[in-house]
Amino acid sequence: MSTVKLVEYDEAGAEVKAVYDDIRRVRKTDFINNFWKALANHPDLLERVWSTGKEVMAPGEIDAVTKEMIYIAVSVANACEYCVHSHTASAFAKGMSDGQYGELLAVIALAQQNNGLASGMQVPVDQVFLKEESQEQGE
Amino acid sequence: MSTVKLVEYDEAGAEVKAVYDDIRRVRKTDFINNFWKALANHPDLLERVWSTGKEVMAPGEIDAVTKEMIYIAVSVANACEYCVHSHTASAFAKGMSDGQYGELLAVIALAQQNNGLASGMQVPVDQVFLKEESQEQGE
Amino acid sequence: MSTVKLVEYDEAGAEVKAVYDDIRRVRKTDFINNFWKALANHPDLLERVWSTGKEVMAPGEIDAVTKEMIYIAVSVANACEYCVHSHTASAFAKGMSDGQYGELLAVIALAQQNNGLASGMQVPVDQVFLKEESQEQGE
Amino acid sequence: MSTVKLVEYDEAGAEVKAVYDDIRRVRKTDFINNFWKALANHPDLLERVWSTGKEVMAPGEIDAVTKEMIYIAVSVANACEYCVHSHTASAFAKGMSDGQYGELLAVIALAQQNNGLASGMQVPVDQVFLKEESQEQGE
Amino acid sequence: MSTVKLVEYDEAGAEVKAVYDDIRRVRKTDFINNFWKALANHPDLLERVWSTGKEVMAPGEIDAVTKEMIYIAVSVANACEYCVHSHTASAFAKGMSDGQYGELLAVIALAQQNNGLASGMQVPVDQVFLKEESQEQGE
Amino acid sequence: MSTVKLVEYDEAGAEVKAVYDDIRRVRKTDFINNFWKALANHPDLLERVWSTGKEVMAPGEIDAVTKEMIYIAVSVANACEYCVHSHTASAFAKGMSDGQYGELLAVIALAQQNNGLASGMQVPVDQVFLKEESQEQGE
Repeated sequence: MSTVKLVEYDEAGAEVKAVYDDIRRVRKTDFINNFWKALANHPDLLERVWSTGKEVMAPGEIDAVTKEMIYIAVSVANACEYCVHSHTASAFAKGMSDGQYGELLAVIALAQQNNGLASGMQVPVDQVFLKEESQEQGE
Repeated sequence: MSTVKLVEYDEAGAEVKAVYDDIRRVRKTDFINNFWKALANHPDLLERVWSTGKEVMAPGEIDAVTKEMIYIAVSVANACEYCVHSHTASAFAKGMSDGQYGELLAVIALAQQNNGLASGMQVPVDQVFLKEESQEQGE
Repeated sequence: MSTVKLVEYDEAGAEVKAVYDDIRRVRKTDFINNFWKALANHPDLLERVWSTGKEVMAPGEIDAVTKEMIYIAVSVANACEYCVHSHTASAFAKGMSDGQYGELLAVIALAQQNNGLASGMQVPVDQVFLKEESQEQGE
Repeated sequence: MSTVKLVEYDEAGAEVKAVYDDIRRVRKTDFINNFWKALANHPDLLERVWSTGKEVMAPGEIDAVTKEMIYIAVSVANACEYCVHSHTASAFAKGMSDGQYGELLAVIALAQQNNGLASGMQVPVDQVFLKEESQEQGE
Repeated sequence: MSTVKLVEYDEAGAEVKAVYDDIRRVRKTDFINNFWKALANHPDLLERVWSTGKEVMAPGEIDAVTKEMIYIAVSVANACEYCVHSHTASAFAKGMSDGQYGELLAVIALAQQNNGLASGMQVPVDQVFLKEESQEQGE
Repeated sequence: MSTVKLVEYDEAGAEVKAVYDDIRRVRKTDFINNFWKALANHPDLLERVWSTGKEVMAPGEIDAVTKEMIYIAVSVANACEYCVHSHTASAFAKGMSDGQYGELLAVIALAQQNNGLASGMQVPVDQVFLKEESQEQGE
């Protein structure tokens, strides 16, 4: 149960309805998930979060499934139950295979493990990584 | 400065030398970065972490650059300075473009933002996500 | 379901009853929430946590509603479900408006986003921030 | 040292220069801090992050100093070194007193402690918190 | 409800059955908990995670109960509900006393609090800690 | 560099000097580490944090070295650089062996890995863990 009322389409004001309509148009479904219904209590926030998300998650130099996997990785590390569920569903809906999902979990698990080891031993960053990165940038 | 001595090749025992040799062989470079030199204080741990990492980060159904981007995403959420630097260098070395890097940062930023909103409002998971996931699994 | 039994008033020992009585006195309600009933399994811990909280959350140079909002911000970043729910209820009870709540969520979301960006790019701290802070302290 | 080149005004393109100019105008100072210089490698991201931040951090129903304190709270929980430094400097610059800073630290410390206890014992959320919140929303 | 189907013994393939058999043999019980049933969707991952865990959690220079307490501490800081529950049950099953559990919670709470304070004030590491650590290593 | 001035003994007020004297007495050394010098800007906070820490970290049903290891585990998961360094130094000073340190790192790494997997797959808590815990408590 959320800290706020979930706003249904019929009880929403014009600004919220416009966002809901755009969500339905972009996603080609009538379904509005709870994240947006909760945000709808604050129409400005709803509008900004939706428009940013629409732009960021669209395929670009990184494809849509990969973007979902990156999103899941962050959400797992932050222990965000809602986000893990909604974006795992999204990733499968956009074509993530079972094999890719297994590899995603394995990479997340490896990074979590090694984050603990590097942080535990406070390993100093190698100079060469810093230099290589600068060279990448043409310095 | 790390909590442990960094073990150089010449002062390492046989078990550590064998791992260092394999790192050099797989990566086609003489360079051993500090993460392994720190782990080398605990040879069993070094061996297990290296062999797991080698297996998990190899290209499979997910390609090598994408795996690095997922790894970076976890490391950013966990605020692991060493891991962010070393795997950003790795991702560029394996072919991540500047455009992909910008999109990676944008997806991480979006997920961080939305993790905060979903957790802040304690949004309940939609039943349809749970059902869809089960259907994905053939139930 | 918690890892410990929730201790009700009637089954509590004298030390726990004294804390429960003080909670009721300070909060002007008979209601004892689950956090204290769980802590009551360890009376010393209960006593210390309650007395510290009573002191820290009392209005001072920062008012009581603002303190609740700061508390919520930390709890969201740490993904503490119980803490988010209990302190959001507290903040509303102490007078947080719907408008303030929307702005609180927006600031949390912005900080989460920018934490990801600053950590992702490992942005070095500007010297002027460090200098300005010292000047604040009269050095 | 960051993973990207810091973009100075003189070497920036028109889109970045426009954001830098707006930062200078809004903040009434020529100084551009490193966060923006790092983001400038990705002009779209720079523009969006700046315009969102400008809107969110402006005084509203919550005043500017309180917004900075909420921002700091999130950044501390996420261990974001850059963000803690830059927003602590901002908060002092906008008028946070030494006394308020001490109370801010005390509330953050209390929330961190209690997040650990509630998560450690997996305390179930009280029904009354959920009900009270709904009543707040007029249900 | 998990993002994956939980794999029961009777529907498992040979590789998964072999791991389940080993879990039963090592733990001297027929019970297989959900963590393994979820991992069984990815047999290679299941095998590696189980064999690593079996090795790491076995008593060594640190006894089995202490290892469970360290595991709980990490899981609390990461807000992993499943891990907190399963390893608190494990720790009690392996002999953790109620008194030890209370002290474990108190140390976790203290560390959480002080992590917030040290991160909040960005306290610089004392040179002597760095030197002492090196001396520990015989330099 | 910290966000606050580090308060040296000679410039401290009576309340701070009393805490510094107690730290020296309890630890049998003249050395005061930076954490306390930073906290000394807020004498009430300094006094409470020191007295709580002194009580919690003293040997009880859990010995002093184990308490340090639990503290390190939390600090690693929270990526608190200062805390990892200061408590790793403490643990070695109180007698942690190199072998114990290696096992501590291995358990932290395992927990980090499995936290990621359990959170990634959102594994539901087994009923038996909940029941066993209640039975532990004599219900």
